This record gives sequence, structure tokens and C-alpha cells, in this order.
Amino acid sequence: SEFRVAILTVSDTVALGSGPDRSGPRAVSVVNSSSEKLGGASVVATAVVPDEVLKIKEYLKRWSDIDKMDLILTLGGTGFTPRDVTPEATKEVIHKETPGLLHVMMQESLKVTQFAMLSRSAAGIRGSTLIINMPGNPNAVAECMEALLPALKHALKQIRGDKREKHPRHV
Amino acid sequence: SEFRVAILTVSDTVALGSGPDRSGPRAVSVVNSSSEKLGGASVVATAVVPDEVLKIKEYLKRWSDIDKMDLILTLGGTGFTPRDVTPEATKEVIHKETPGLLHVMMQESLKVTQFAMLSRSAAGIRGSTLIINMPGNPNAVAECMEALLPALKHALKQIRGDKREKHPRHV
Amino acid sequence: SEFRVAILTVSDTVALGSGPDRSGPRAVSVVNSSSEKLGGASVVATAVVPDEVLKIKEYLKRWSDIDKMDLILTLGGTGFTPRDVTPEATKEVIHKETPGLLHVMMQESLKVTQFAMLSRSAAGIRGSTLIINMPGNPNAVAECMEALLPALKHALKQIRGDKREKHPRHV
Ligand code: NA
Repeated sequence: SEFRVAILTVSDTVALGSGPDRSGPRAVSVVNSSSEKLGGASVVATAVVPDEVLKIKEYLKRWSDIDKMDLILTLGGTGFTPRDVTPEATKEVIHKETPGLLHVMMQESLKVTQFAMLSRSAAGIRGSTLIINMPGNPNAVAECMEALLPALKHALKQIRGDKREKHPRHV
Repeated sequence: SEFRVAILTVSDTVALGSGPDRSGPRAVSVVNSSSEKLGGASVVATAVVPDEVLKIKEYLKRWSDIDKMDLILTLGGTGFTPRDVTPEATKEVIHKETPGLLHVMMQESLKVTQFAMLSRSAAGIRGSTLIINMPGNPNAVAECMEALLPALKHALKQIRGDKREKHPRHV
Repeated sequence: SEFRVAILTVSDTVALGSGPDRSGPRAVSVVNSSSEKLGGASVVATAVVPDEVLKIKEYLKRWSDIDKMDLILTLGGTGFTPRDVTPEATKEVIHKETPGLLHVMMQESLKVTQFAMLSRSAAGIRGSTLIINMPGNPNAVAECMEALLPALKHALKQIRGDKREKHPRHV
């Protein structure tokens, strides 16, 4: 009953081998150090793709439909530059939107820096997998996870269909 | 010139007769006790449907297009379990989104419990009817109505085309 | 390297000549007085259109695709009345959504008046142009610009593809 997590670094620079992946390893360590609060989550897959819609979608679909991940975190590609397309790729594959997760990530990130308003993150459910876009910056990943932690375990249990996880205030 | 309100309880359990409808009667009492602040609103129809997109849409369309309700509140089906599909049904029938209503409901609900981030509520306008998803929990319904009350009467008057209701700061 | 701004007043009343355009001139003055903070922005075009989807889209597309504006602000048409269609027109032409801009505008506007929840503003990127809906009220325009100012220059530089503008915390 452990939750299986996959982490996708989206970055032309890293995919081309022109720079190190600083976000991916940091996200792995954030998830692992929050494992207990997440109901026993562990990162079982990581990958790097360039900022291309088709390649991002390929991983999101494979990890959801075939590998049945409980949670996929994407890192990067959420800004305003022409190459930033992670939210567009994500919105094309999710079946249900989860706007409350975006609200808390934005609300908490804005307390750290007003540049958080430049995040275009999307989030949603595909089958039994929760997909969440996070900024590429290593510190922002930790901040976003911190914002989600109070309810993320319940989210993952609900997606698995565990009705007991319906919180009394929010059926 | 009273506003006519309809309340749709979305719940497999209640629809199957396996449990009582606690949310519906509570929502009726919340609307009735706020009637004055809502410009004279009264609940004129209630119904219960299972968590099925087609059945939810059927009521939303009938109550909007034929019965010309001013406001429809749905209760429940906004969480992360596989059966939660109320927002998806709602988004398929609305013509215009009303994201500000969702923002204030989320902002105020988060002050009560961080589990509020698990609400996936949608809201919008179909014809001259405002449709708002609320969580199924009876207390959450009251909290969400409380958040909307300061502007809900104006919203309903604007939808009817009353130009005088254009608030000077937000035409 | 100055940013070129266009301002579209959306109002049946003004388009019909039945009333003065109070929002447009105020928005011009707000942009001009914030020019430095915006990295040297200046208003190079203004227009008035009635509350009609096709006419709104026509300006948004011409100013983005042909005139290559950096920023388009629309004023008005974001409320709940049947004629308010500016967000619908905007969503039909943008390629990428920018939900963080809407979050901060809503969050800050709610501090001024709870009627802000009635704004249905949309915002997003078309090609290399940022399009933001603002309420028609002259004071609300100033408040919304104030909320965006801390990050708007960076947004415009990112859209132009300036990678150096990737803020360290939000790649
Ligand atoms: Na907020």
C-alpha cells in the first residue's frame, strides 16, 4: 500500500546534457523526507525530457496508464517563455482538474516571492494517477510540496477509491 | 422578483436509499435563513441523483433551460475519488465560468481546514442561471454560502440583465 | 527594447457614443506612470469595441499577430450580465493560460471590495503577446496593475524569449 511516485524533469538544457539536473534530485529528496506524511511514498522512477509537448505527454501517459504511478511531479517548463509548455502538455492528458491544489501552491508561493505569479502550473487526475506541475527551481519544489503535504496523502487515497478517506468536511 | 433556487444532492449513497440526505436539508435551511441577504431567495426544487455525469447534467439543464431557476447549488461529488464527477458534469453545461466565486470559496474554506484544497468545485452561468458546486458536507455548505453572500445577490441581479447592479468598481 | 502596450475598452455604451470612455484614458495614464517599473512600456494603440465576441477577438488577434504588441489590456465586459463576454472572447484567442496573474489580481482586489469576486477576468499568452482582462472601473484598473507590477516586466521579457529573465525561484 505504498504510494509510487515518478518525477519528470522538463528542461531543454538538462535533456541536451548542457547542464546538471538540480531539480530532479532535490525533488526526490523532498518526497523521500516526507514519505511518512505522504502515507509511505517513494520515488520509483525519474526521467528528463526537453520542453516538448509530445515528449512530456508520452511520459505522463506511460507512467499513468502502464506503470500505474500514484503521483507524478513534473519540474520546470511552467513559465512565460516560448519553450515553456509543461502546463499545456499536462492539460491535454488529465481527465479531471484539481484547482484547489493549484490555489494553495500559488497562495503559499506568493508569500515567498511575488514572482510566483509567473507560474502557470496545472494539476489533475488521469485514471488513478495525480499529476502536479511544479516550478523547476529546487527551492520552489520544496515550498510547493510543503503547501500540499497537509492533504496530499488523503488525495492519493481518495484517487485509489478509498471512501473512508472522504474527509467529513469535504465529501 | 424573488430569486428561485434549486438544490441538487449528488450522492450514490443517498440515491440508492442507503443513507439519509444530510446536505440537502441543511442547504435548504442555509438558503432560507439567508433569504433577505440574497434579495429574497427561496428554494423551490430539490432532487437527489447518483454520481453520474448524465444524470447530473439532465437536472442542471432542465432547471436552467425549462424551469428558469436563478441559482442551482449542487452538493457533493467534488472530491478526488473515481465516482466524483460533479465538476466535470457542470463544466459541460455552463456557458461562462465564474472563477472569482471559486476563489473566495476556496480562500475562506482553507481558513477552516486545509482539506479544502481537495475540493474541485466548478461554477458558472448557463443562460440566466448561476450554477455553483459545493462540497457535500453540511458544514462546508454553510461556510461556502457565507463566503459568497456579500456579492451573491448582485450576481443574480446581473445575470438577469439588471445593469444598475453593475457595481461601480467592477463593471 | 521598449514594451508596446495596447488598450481595448469593451463597452456597448462607449461604442455607441452614449457615454464617455472613463476607463481607457485612466488605463493609459496608469501604464504611463508605471512605465519605468514596466521596463519602459508605452501605450501605442487604443480602441473601443461593443460587448461582442467577434469584435473583441478581431482586435486581440490583429494587435497580437500583425502589430506584435507586447501587452494588451482589455477594460470591461468581465461581469455577470448577459452582455459581458470579454473573458469568453479572450479564452478563444489565447494559446497559453496565465492563472497566477488572475490569482494575484483577485487576491488583491478582494482586499478592496468583496464585489471583486464578480470579476470573471481571463489572461493568457498569444504568440508573443500577453493579454489581460481588467474590470471596466477606472479604480479597479489601477488596483489590478498595482497587483501585477512586481512581476509584469519579467513576464514581458520572458514572453520575448529572454532566458536570463527566468527568475531563479521560478524557471
Ligand atoms: Na488567496
